[in-house]
Amino acid sequence: MKELKQQLNFIMELDRLKAVYRKTMVQSDDNRQENSAEHSWHISMVATVFHQYAQEPVNINRVVSMLLIHDIVEIDVGDTFAFAAQQDLDAQEEKELRAANRLFGLLPETQFQLFQTLWLEFEQAESADARFAKAMDCILPLIQNMANQGGSWAKHEVKKHQVLKRNQYLQDLAPKLWSYACSEIDLAVEKGWLSH
Amino acid sequence: MKELKQQLNFIMELDRLKAVYRKTMVQSDDNRQENSAEHSWHISMVATVFHQYAQEPVNINRVVSMLLIHDIVEIDVGDTFAFAAQQDLDAQEEKELRAANRLFGLLPETQFQLFQTLWLEFEQAESADARFAKAMDCILPLIQNMANQGGSWAKHEVKKHQVLKRNQYLQDLAPKLWSYACSEIDLAVEKGWLSH
Repeated sequence: MKELKQQLNFIMELDRLKAVYRKTMVQSDDNRQENSAEHSWHISMVATVFHQYAQEPVNINRVVSMLLIHDIVEIDVGDTFAFAAQQDLDAQEEKELRAANRLFGLLPETQFQLFQTLWLEFEQAESADARFAKAMDCILPLIQNMANQGGSWAKHEVKKHQVLKRNQYLQDLAPKLWSYACSEIDLAVEKGWLSH
Repeated sequence: MKELKQQLNFIMELDRLKAVYRKTMVQSDDNRQENSAEHSWHISMVATVFHQYAQEPVNINRVVSMLLIHDIVEIDVGDTFAFAAQQDLDAQEEKELRAANRLFGLLPETQFQLFQTLWLEFEQAESADARFAKAMDCILPLIQNMANQGGSWAKHEVKKHQVLKRNQYLQDLAPKLWSYACSEIDLAVEKGWLSH
C-alpha cells in the first residue's frame, strides 16, 4: 500500500509538466506555446517513426522510455530555451539534477533507481540510445519551425550555426536525417527565418 | 526520400492532437481542459509505473506503444466523453476506423500496417496488453478527478456504476489497483462527486 501511495503521488506530480511552457509554438492550436508534456509525447512518436534511420543499433523501447521521462525535471526548474546563453544552460544542469532526485525520489526505490539511471544516460548523451533520443529532441523543433514560418527561431533571432550544432547528433547516427536537416536549415536562412 | 516525406507529413499532422481537448481538467494549469497529446504522455507514464500490478504477463513496451498512438484518431473525429450515450459511442467507433485509415495511411506501408494493427488490438481490448492499456486509460482520469474535487465527474453528473464499469478491466488484471479504484469510487460518492 505504501508503494501504491508513492506511485499515485508521483503520477499527480507529473500533471504539472502540462503547465511547463516551451518556446516552440503549436501552430494547429492558435499558435500558443507548446507544453513539455505534449512535447514528450510528440518526440516519442517521432523516435518511433524515425527509428529506421539509425545507423547504429538503437533500442527503440529504451529511447522512448528516455524521451517520456527526459523533461520531467522541468516540473521543478522550468524549461530553458535550447539557444540560451551557455552560463544559463550550465546553471540549469545542476538544478535539474536536484529536481531529478526529488521527483524520481517520490517513487519506490527500485523505480527511482531505474528512472534516475535512464535520465542520467540521456543527459550524458554517450550511448547510442541516448544520442538518438537527443537527436529526436532536437530535430522535432526544426520540423515544427520549418512548418511554422520559422517559429521560435525567427521570434528569438536564432543563428544558423546554433541550429547546425544542435542537430549534430544526426551527422554520424542518422546521415539521411542529417542531410534533410542541413537542407532545411539552408532554406530557413534563405527565407530569413535563421540569421547567419 | 519519398518515405521521409510521408513520415514528416505524419509528424506534422500529429501536432493537431495538441488541439483536441478532453473533458478532464488540468488542475495544475488553471483547471483548463486537458488535450489528448499530453494525456497520451501521461498514461504512458502511468502504465510504466503501474506495470508491476499486472497479474498476467504484459509486455510494457507494446502497452506504451499502444497508448502513444491510441488517441491519434481524435485528430479527425475529436474526443468523445467516456460517459457519453451508447449511441454516440457506437457512432464514434466507425468514424475512428476511417480516421485510423487516413492518419496511419500517411505513413509508408510497413509503418501503416504496424500502427493500424496495434491500434485495432487496443480497440478490441482482448489481449492482455490491450486490456492493461485500456485499464490505464480509465484509471488515470479517476486519479485526476479524485485529486480535483470530482473534476469531470462532478461537472457532468457521472454515476458510480458508470465509473465502476469503466474500470472493470482492473478486476482480474490488476486486483490491487481494482481495490484501490473501488475504495476511491466509494469515497467520491461520499463526497458527492459521483451520484448513485
